[in-house]
Amino acid sequence: MRYHKIANETIRRLPIYLRGMLFLSEQNRKTISSQNLADIVGINSWQIRKDFSYFGDFGKPGVGYIVEKLIRHIKKILKLDKEHKTALIGVGNLGRALLAYPGFGPYGFNIVAAFDNDPAKIGKKIENINVEDVSRLPALSKRKVDLAIIAVPRDAAQEVADVLVEAGVKGILKFSPHHIEVPKKIKVISIDIATDLARLPYYMSA
Amino acid sequence: MRYHKIANETIRRLPIYLRGMLFLSEQNRKTISSQNLADIVGINSWQIRKDFSYFGDFGKPGVGYIVEKLIRHIKKILKLDKEHKTALIGVGNLGRALLAYPGFGPYGFNIVAAFDNDPAKIGKKIENINVEDVSRLPALSKRKVDLAIIAVPRDAAQEVADVLVEAGVKGILKFSPHHIEVPKKIKVISIDIATDLARLPYYMSA
Repeated sequence: MRYHKIANETIRRLPIYLRGMLFLSEQNRKTISSQNLADIVGINSWQIRKDFSYFGDFGKPGVGYIVEKLIRHIKKILKLDKEHKTALIGVGNLGRALLAYPGFGPYGFNIVAAFDNDPAKIGKKIENINVEDVSRLPALSKRKVDLAIIAVPRDAAQEVADVLVEAGVKGILKFSPHHIEVPKKIKVISIDIATDLARLPYYMSA
Repeated sequence: MRYHKIANETIRRLPIYLRGMLFLSEQNRKTISSQNLADIVGINSWQIRKDFSYFGDFGKPGVGYIVEKLIRHIKKILKLDKEHKTALIGVGNLGRALLAYPGFGPYGFNIVAAFDNDPAKIGKKIENINVEDVSRLPALSKRKVDLAIIAVPRDAAQEVADVLVEAGVKGILKFSPHHIEVPKKIKVISIDIATDLARLPYYMSA
């Protein structure tokens, strides 16, 4: 089954729905109405119904959405129905925080390798991951890693990305808003904490 | 001048436009077309024009948007036209990364205080910020801090949030998807790295 032309904004919301459904699944909930899902994820129920209409309707009248079925479907659409071996480049403060972060597992992300250029870190074990010399990055191509998280200083990001692309990585997550050049087939997502923080004051009472 | 009923999705995009405009300003660009802005920020030009139409049109036919004027307007709408004193709670790996992060300045966020409960950290200076005992959090109310970033372990987040609200903080940024209870007038934004990462595989070629 293939899904075509799903809007980027819908794809952005699907992981949020998935997170809500995983939460419900943990609580052994079997079904949920779009209104209840809306309350949990903080997105309007009409928006949820519209998003789901892109790829068929998962709801049953009077019953709502079936939690496990919806989880399976969303994971399939997002290609999260298999493990994604992930490499982390840069084991500074941010990198260490990421290695310790327990939230990747439910989505099938498995950080299997970590790299740094600091001799003091290379060879150390952090959160059960052996820190390797960044000069060994090209060998990633033999290890079926398709995702990478770049947590290096801004000026090193482009160079690291070049090597990652060469090593066969297909998706990159980075933490600086600065543009990096990659071939078109490589997807890059940036998390920019300042941009998220920047919408907070709008909602704050005077 | 007040702006009413701007959709949350528009508010989410405004900081992205602002970031693009600040980038253009650094390069001494005076004007930009919606199409060029679209290319820079990765959002459709029709979406940009629609978003801007909520609060009046900043564009001039044949000229485009005037960069400095647009920056001023967006900052005003987002209440970023004044400094926001910000407190950081939790100086672990993530907290240290945030203290070292240079990206907050352009939006007027100024981290003026950091707190932890670890005696080994209290009293230390990290990135020019003195780490204070978290038991002193209630005294924040005297320091005109209106924003807080919570970077503590998940189980401590609710307790910290309670004290922050009591101390007069009006907006909270946190890094775990887990719900915290706060009064309605307090705005909470969560950054969940896994949810962002979760939309990456969809775009990756097989």
